[in-house]
Amino acid sequence: MQRIRIKQALNAEAGMDQALVKGWVRTRRDSKAFSFLEINDGSCLKNLQVIVDADSPAYGNLGEITTGYAVAVTGSLVESPGKGQKWELKADSLSLVGEADKDFPLQKKRHTDEFLRGIAHLRPRTNKFGAIFRIRSEVSYAVHKFFRDRGFFYVHTPIITGSDAEGAGEMFRVTTLEPGRAGEDLFSEDFFGKEAGLTVSGQLEAETFATSLGNVYTFGPTFRAENSNTPRHAAEFWMIEPEMAFADLNDNMDLGEDMVKYMVGHLLDNCADDLELFAKFVDKTLMPTLETMAKADYVRLPYTEAVEVLKASDKKFEFPVEWGMDMQTEHERYLCEDHFKKPVIVYDYPKEIKAFYMRLNDDDRTVGAMDLLVPRVGELIGGSQREERLDVLKKRLEELEMEEAPYWWYLDLRRYGSVPHSGFGLGFERFLMAVTGVTNIRDVIPFPRTPKHLEF
Amino acid sequence: MQRIRIKQALNAEAGMDQALVKGWVRTRRDSKAFSFLEINDGSCLKNLQVIVDADSPAYGNLGEITTGYAVAVTGSLVESPGKGQKWELKADSLSLVGEADKDFPLQKKRHTDEFLRGIAHLRPRTNKFGAIFRIRSEVSYAVHKFFRDRGFFYVHTPIITGSDAEGAGEMFRVTTLEPGRAGEDLFSEDFFGKEAGLTVSGQLEAETFATSLGNVYTFGPTFRAENSNTPRHAAEFWMIEPEMAFADLNDNMDLGEDMVKYMVGHLLDNCADDLELFAKFVDKTLMPTLETMAKADYVRLPYTEAVEVLKASDKKFEFPVEWGMDMQTEHERYLCEDHFKKPVIVYDYPKEIKAFYMRLNDDDRTVGAMDLLVPRVGELIGGSQREERLDVLKKRLEELEMEEAPYWWYLDLRRYGSVPHSGFGLGFERFLMAVTGVTNIRDVIPFPRTPKHLEF
Repeated sequence: MQRIRIKQALNAEAGMDQALVKGWVRTRRDSKAFSFLEINDGSCLKNLQVIVDADSPAYGNLGEITTGYAVAVTGSLVESPGKGQKWELKADSLSLVGEADKDFPLQKKRHTDEFLRGIAHLRPRTNKFGAIFRIRSEVSYAVHKFFRDRGFFYVHTPIITGSDAEGAGEMFRVTTLEPGRAGEDLFSEDFFGKEAGLTVSGQLEAETFATSLGNVYTFGPTFRAENSNTPRHAAEFWMIEPEMAFADLNDNMDLGEDMVKYMVGHLLDNCADDLELFAKFVDKTLMPTLETMAKADYVRLPYTEAVEVLKASDKKFEFPVEWGMDMQTEHERYLCEDHFKKPVIVYDYPKEIKAFYMRLNDDDRTVGAMDLLVPRVGELIGGSQREERLDVLKKRLEELEMEEAPYWWYLDLRRYGSVPHSGFGLGFERFLMAVTGVTNIRDVIPFPRTPKHLEF
Repeated sequence: MQRIRIKQALNAEAGMDQALVKGWVRTRRDSKAFSFLEINDGSCLKNLQVIVDADSPAYGNLGEITTGYAVAVTGSLVESPGKGQKWELKADSLSLVGEADKDFPLQKKRHTDEFLRGIAHLRPRTNKFGAIFRIRSEVSYAVHKFFRDRGFFYVHTPIITGSDAEGAGEMFRVTTLEPGRAGEDLFSEDFFGKEAGLTVSGQLEAETFATSLGNVYTFGPTFRAENSNTPRHAAEFWMIEPEMAFADLNDNMDLGEDMVKYMVGHLLDNCADDLELFAKFVDKTLMPTLETMAKADYVRLPYTEAVEVLKASDKKFEFPVEWGMDMQTEHERYLCEDHFKKPVIVYDYPKEIKAFYMRLNDDDRTVGAMDLLVPRVGELIGGSQREERLDVLKKRLEELEMEEAPYWWYLDLRRYGSVPHSGFGLGFERFLMAVTGVTNIRDVIPFPRTPKHLEF
């Protein structure tokens, strides 16, 4: 007999005489004439209710079977008289696949997120974390589909790198030298013969591909060795970084807005059950903001005007508002949650607070940068038009006292058929937090890495 | 005027009066009455031929424009009288977007792969590397589509890890300690408070998700700090690792065969032009072997029988053939290229040459492992049914003198609703080498990382 997944069973068009279901018992409830097992196999949020009639041969095999046990059940899929499900399985036979020790920690009761982080290998067996990771998977697929449908190529930019794309210096070092090894000129003896680190962004390498294949994107892990213990920081997270040749800042804003709308729309269309859990138990404002993210025209606002809006507000901000400031999450959230009540793209930021590769505007004090802000998380996307003029770019490096030599290949792109080009980075975990209402980044990553935490 | 990509232009159903094309000049050829520009924008292998009539206003703007320059051209897309293309663009206007310095290295002549590795930031502008990286992108998409269509969830397993999934010890260390820092108990002061490394496989973590969500897969970078300078080894490469709950070795072989067939079929359907380049210039046997990979029934052969086949052959192998040996590439290639002339799945390997987590067979000397071998590269997939019996797994760890403690969470999966489960790893670069005929792994990775090489 061919096994069917519970998602298929629950969405069946008609009953089935012979269905084989395998999964884990979430709960067991016994009455005189029946036992009821709620079975989940991970394919969807909902359980399949299995009825074991005291008269059926399956009944004799029930034994100790309870929460956490793995079972295989055959029977007939019939319309359920109960509420909340269309189908239930009337068991003909039942077999035990794997027992659960008595100390199985996921007994039927509420667990704190913190407790569940300590058993990250088991937490996807809960409703909430199963839903999060199904959503994470489905949105990943949406990202690939979005770009492929638009003729973008996926590029695997390197994880181990010799260059610091942001010039920010918060990089992990990668080495094969024995720990504690001292000496001079150590790096020459290291695996790569020079200092190596974990990438903070694939952007610079993606630019080389944009100026070859046209439109490209990355989707991979990035790293920050930042010693921050906050609900928003992780040492390892995933980023999506599109990069387009022959594209200016407006094209970039269009792409960012289209992409977020597509991702949210895809989620609404494909993960309704899982989303409902978050709308019900995590954040009551979820569904209306998702609808807005999927459908509204996003506000586009120069940084200078954004600062005016913030100044004019009655809100008390922790960080003072003045032109030249790096916007904080409180400012970003005020703009999109309180003032405009929809996603906002702020552009043309002061050059002092942005990276060396952003295109200098004619005013000589702002750069063609843009951040896309959304409710719950603030900055979701950060991007810019890239400086394509060799002389201007070299001058910026000089101003910032950055060495030219490590960027020889990056500068080459401005020597050989340089073109206006643009791109951005979207923090994938921030997106997941924005669309689920989950407020701790540790709860949207399968096995989060943070200072002093490296279990599993 | 809306820009069209060259791929669209070349596949147009009808001519167009007003087309805007942007790209890079591959070649320029002048006659008295015309200039011919071959333009490429990366969207496909083929160039668009642009005709600039000496009478047209565009002609005056041609100037020094030549190989490597970026241009924008408007004109009419008309049927081409020339061979090899259906459409060409008759220019009305032409503008220079970016010059190329005279030393632009990709002048029209053949370059060696080795030379091009030194300019990995420019090589995707060549026909061969453009094709490789378009194929890499399209096959990546096929992987995601294959799994999603079958109800598998994509899991981002961690890159930085505290455990060695293979127990093989060839890991990079990840640290924030100052280089050369000596002292005792160093790791307690390191970022994670313990020794950290780059993952060699996401399998163990994927198993935790398979036993929650059912069927899952990873697709991400993995690392080996192996000091091997061969055309087959890279320090950083991408792996695809599916993992299925309630699945045995046969299900695993079915999945591997289905997956390879799907990936090759998708490639044949979607990358015909790019593949043709490899069939013509790189490996004349390419197309027939791809057809076989896509359509033949794969051979399934126990290891013990495979050894007999090798013993019976006339071929002189460098490594002697005997039961218990770890098969070498020469053996693997002999089986699928010479003997069976199609992909071969070898299963039930001696336990001594396989990892601790593979399921022990009843004979107590083999494990439920399987390798899928394909022409040109040998082992493409390595997988197994996983040991789901707690007592047997603990005994294996003991036999191998491995500590139990770091695997507490992995063992937990055998304590709480343990189920038969199976999975494998597919080396993505090996797949790309098998389907293009490219023989050096450095040429299928955007920016390859090998001992002493960390440019870009």
